[in-house]
Amino acid sequence: MLNFNFQNPTHIHFGEGQISVITKEIPLNARVLVVYGGGSIKTNGVFQQVSDALAKHTWFEFSGIEPNPTYNTLMKAQDIIKAENIDYLLAVGGGSVVDGAKFIAAAAEYEGEDPWDIIVKQQPVNKALPIGAVLTLPATGSESNGNSVVTRDGTKIPFSSPLVRPLFAVLDPSVTLSLSDRQISNGVVDAFVHIIEQYLTYSVNGKVQDRFSEGLLQTLIEEGPKALAPATKDDLEVRANIMWSATMALNGLIGAGVPQDWATHMIGHELTGAFGVDHARSLSIVLPSLMQVRREQKREKLLQYAERVWHINEGDDNVRIDQAIKLTVEFFKQMQVPTCLSDVGITDKDIDLLVARLEKHGMNALGEKGDITLDISREILTKAL
Amino acid sequence: MLNFNFQNPTHIHFGEGQISVITKEIPLNARVLVVYGGGSIKTNGVFQQVSDALAKHTWFEFSGIEPNPTYNTLMKAQDIIKAENIDYLLAVGGGSVVDGAKFIAAAAEYEGEDPWDIIVKQQPVNKALPIGAVLTLPATGSESNGNSVVTRDGTKIPFSSPLVRPLFAVLDPSVTLSLSDRQISNGVVDAFVHIIEQYLTYSVNGKVQDRFSEGLLQTLIEEGPKALAPATKDDLEVRANIMWSATMALNGLIGAGVPQDWATHMIGHELTGAFGVDHARSLSIVLPSLMQVRREQKREKLLQYAERVWHINEGDDNVRIDQAIKLTVEFFKQMQVPTCLSDVGITDKDIDLLVARLEKHGMNALGEKGDITLDISREILTKAL
Repeated sequence: MLNFNFQNPTHIHFGEGQISVITKEIPLNARVLVVYGGGSIKTNGVFQQVSDALAKHTWFEFSGIEPNPTYNTLMKAQDIIKAENIDYLLAVGGGSVVDGAKFIAAAAEYEGEDPWDIIVKQQPVNKALPIGAVLTLPATGSESNGNSVVTRDGTKIPFSSPLVRPLFAVLDPSVTLSLSDRQISNGVVDAFVHIIEQYLTYSVNGKVQDRFSEGLLQTLIEEGPKALAPATKDDLEVRANIMWSATMALNGLIGAGVPQDWATHMIGHELTGAFGVDHARSLSIVLPSLMQVRREQKREKLLQYAERVWHINEGDDNVRIDQAIKLTVEFFKQMQVPTCLSDVGITDKDIDLLVARLEKHGMNALGEKGDITLDISREILTKAL
Repeated sequence: MLNFNFQNPTHIHFGEGQISVITKEIPLNARVLVVYGGGSIKTNGVFQQVSDALAKHTWFEFSGIEPNPTYNTLMKAQDIIKAENIDYLLAVGGGSVVDGAKFIAAAAEYEGEDPWDIIVKQQPVNKALPIGAVLTLPATGSESNGNSVVTRDGTKIPFSSPLVRPLFAVLDPSVTLSLSDRQISNGVVDAFVHIIEQYLTYSVNGKVQDRFSEGLLQTLIEEGPKALAPATKDDLEVRANIMWSATMALNGLIGAGVPQDWATHMIGHELTGAFGVDHARSLSIVLPSLMQVRREQKREKLLQYAERVWHINEGDDNVRIDQAIKLTVEFFKQMQVPTCLSDVGITDKDIDLLVARLEKHGMNALGEKGDITLDISREILTKAL
């Protein structure tokens, strides 16, 4: 395996009823800003649990963080942070809310002129407000990593810093029972693709990382559809397994010491930016096609994926790879997400625009070896039609 | 799965040449005590690398920490800590050295009368010197957990505190190339049994934890024998996979949210205490017998273990369980460790003594449900003859 350094200090509190731990996790003398999204936490009981836990704290609210959080919305939080001397952020929501809190936290302590430089000029984050997270939607792993994606003028740009990694995260699977099928399916697919992107590269003989990734993929394949099926969708154990898988999928562990290929995410971002496709659905459209186009480069790992994740042992190499891709597509269909561009109304006429956007965003050397050129991205998009 | 909280902030630096990172990890103004064992680090180049990395630091040495570190040895370190105002410990060695450093760190800051109370009265550790670790023998996971076992008058007693968890750990697989076959085999078997003890209980449907445990077991089964075979024993990838497996085996992750059964360790400790059996070898003797005696209580997990780890799919339940236990024993034999008491010269005449020791040490309610009585431990020991 490759040399690596790995550290993940986020304190995980997992299980039903754990929201109450924020009473002790956040210092009593902190001035807390609770940040959240569209208000679903006010109807599903989560906001009440947070309020109860913060009964003795001084705290304020900032709501309205949208899916794919925008710079403009996030910057509005700076007013209340200054006015109320906020020194602790509590993100209550899914990946978008946690991502948004990270930018708010870094912007609040940014010493340069324009906090947008953190993202567009990748200026280092030297200081940030401390963040805690109460996760309501298992998907992005943002609750225990230092990554964030912010959107401005339709462009999604990531930034990363260990200083914005949440100090603690509450993962209560029971709060996910009120999610819509679409939110659940998006979350499972997003986590699934995160794992694939740290796994489906060339082999460096990282046996622990491979086995862990395969175990997470198998768990999502087993449990994901159950979270949509009427008979099992309220099963708390199903929700718990999905929630823990999604966190483990992107907390740095399975990616430590192995190559990574984030091309599916980068190409998918353009589907979201240009056509408003849900993030996870952009991934389920791009991934099967990327697997086909990169089948030679990823041959060894695709065969391992076929054997260990899908238990495919029959046929020659190409047959086994085809079968593994087919089963991946079937899993996505089971999860009720689109698997090709036509499913979301994107046609061959749109490919030029998508490739132009990739070029504009500097995405001309993607993949684990940086050899996915714009031409290859075009091929991936074309095959995804 | 069960509710849990999990945090592991140890910063892992993994790979060849990583010892040099201690220059930056340890504050330059620290007064460092480098603690180590019998001096093998002086012949294999590790001590030199540590010296080079600490060239600008103020540091001192304390050596002689034995396998199964003793209270008497560890307390001798307090003199130099006081005389030189030591405020940072760097443990360079295997699990015994790291365990020993943990007790030294806690004893140095203990405010009660007798540091032994930390262990024998399980007094809480409120303060401890910071610890860094350079691991030379993959086995115990001590480099990234808060656990320690200290021996006094032939009795091994554990203590635990997050305050003695190393702040960082350097895992350079190339330093393990100078280990003896016996050290390697002991390390692999110790790690294997750590995993089993967090896995082979009753099922709580912790799918991620199960898959991770199975992946680690499979990795050790594949890589362990290679580290002993002449053609592959110097393969750095083999060493890397073993090293990372051993750390992951006991850093808290696979045990979070699932029941645990440490009976094999507790019974094994008496073999070490009474007869000087190597720690890992006490485990390889006890585990197969414990699997036999507890086959009804562990039936579901034993069948899962048979299928997923050993790929046994033929025969009825009892046949599959027998086969899994048989393959476990064969793996231990491949790893060149004893698998029954007669292999180390212990006979039926010694069982009374071992049970009496368990009773003296309060080990009368072992196992994941606390239902392994002294009688059942006797049965396990008898079947291990």
